[in-house]
Amino acid sequence: MRYELYYWPEIQGRGEFVRLALEEAGTDYVDVARRRGGENKMFAVMQSARLRQLPFAPPFLKAGNLMIGQTTNILMFLGRRHGLVPSSEAGLLWTHQLELTIADFLVEIHDTHHPIGSGLYYEDQKKESKLRAQDFLKNRVPKFLNYFETVLARNKSGFLASGRLATPDLSMFQIVEGLRFAFPRAMRRFERKCPKLVALHDRVARRPRIAAYLNSERRIPFNQMGIFRHYRELDG
Amino acid sequence: MRYELYYWPEIQGRGEFVRLALEEAGTDYVDVARRRGGENKMFAVMQSARLRQLPFAPPFLKAGNLMIGQTTNILMFLGRRHGLVPSSEAGLLWTHQLELTIADFLVEIHDTHHPIGSGLYYEDQKKESKLRAQDFLKNRVPKFLNYFETVLARNKSGFLASGRLATPDLSMFQIVEGLRFAFPRAMRRFERKCPKLVALHDRVARRPRIAAYLNSERRIPFNQMGIFRHYRELDG
Repeated sequence: MRYELYYWPEIQGRGEFVRLALEEAGTDYVDVARRRGGENKMFAVMQSARLRQLPFAPPFLKAGNLMIGQTTNILMFLGRRHGLVPSSEAGLLWTHQLELTIADFLVEIHDTHHPIGSGLYYEDQKKESKLRAQDFLKNRVPKFLNYFETVLARNKSGFLASGRLATPDLSMFQIVEGLRFAFPRAMRRFERKCPKLVALHDRVARRPRIAAYLNSERRIPFNQMGIFRHYRELDG
Repeated sequence: MRYELYYWPEIQGRGEFVRLALEEAGTDYVDVARRRGGENKMFAVMQSARLRQLPFAPPFLKAGNLMIGQTTNILMFLGRRHGLVPSSEAGLLWTHQLELTIADFLVEIHDTHHPIGSGLYYEDQKKESKLRAQDFLKNRVPKFLNYFETVLARNKSGFLASGRLATPDLSMFQIVEGLRFAFPRAMRRFERKCPKLVALHDRVARRPRIAAYLNSERRIPFNQMGIFRHYRELDG
């Protein structure tokens, strides 16, 4: 079965967490909105007058008859189907819990450059962004990174959720990549305190399918429209 | 089995979404931190030096050997165990998707009074709160409420996720209650445009177990420390 991923065509954004899972699992998928006319196809789903299980926002994934919305929900679905989450109930709940905590972190990352309104320009909330980014780097990044470093330290396997790679490991790779892009100066300092997370990042980057993906045109480069943005004035 | 809910004892907060599910399901549970010495018991879990499946923050639920964190994850677990989510994979994914969208809404509600930093006082981010609340009431509330109203309109049952009550219905009840407390003036205006959501709220409030709970001391009243806070200057 060919999956259809629907997401904004010009950014990594939340779609990237889904792409990484689709790639690691070696699935056949189409990144719909990146094809000619595909963005209109995405809008048609969102504005459908009949679809009962309407997604609130991209990303959403069409899998046969299923139309699944919400990034962490898609990851749970793909994880179960492709062996990227443990099969036990306890293992699934723990994996999903980690994924949800990563998603919380991601919202806070986004809000460093959009603390007042996601529909406004950064330039119109620059002063507030400085305040938010300051608090973020001082209080929130250390709290989140230390949490995941602790989880890694207690799970001897070198992966977050279980004895082998699962979706939160892929997502954490993306978080580290993104933080390096957005906050290079601050991140150099943080990385000294979370060597296990850095090692996890490197381990994921070396996975053959992930390495091939990162070198392909399917990987959209980081840019100033996505969730991770580099503004020098926000970087500590 | 007696569940143990761990959450801050003085607020409804995220814990309330779990309490509503525990109450509707008629479960036996302890609200640990509201008992004498219970808050220290909660901190002991969070600061445990050995717990492998460490929660990032309250709420978390102890269910036998499981320690489950993240509100939506707990709701999925309880929903499956107590018939508060559909049993099919498709039904579960859709229900969880709705729950996750409600959780996204809740973050934005919280951030109206904490746009700069969750660890700072409201008084120290009052100016920014006004800007954020303005954008929230103008753009975000209509978008979210209209989305859920549309979902209700397409599901003829009068419930959000399926043919009968599921966890998102309980959560949406709490959202409506909370918005009425926090933004009474704006909410009067909004409610005219989402009669189905108001009817859902009323239907949930009339459920015998929910009605009994709301009249009990187990229900913590809304206050100025929780996620939903009433600041006159933010209410449109």
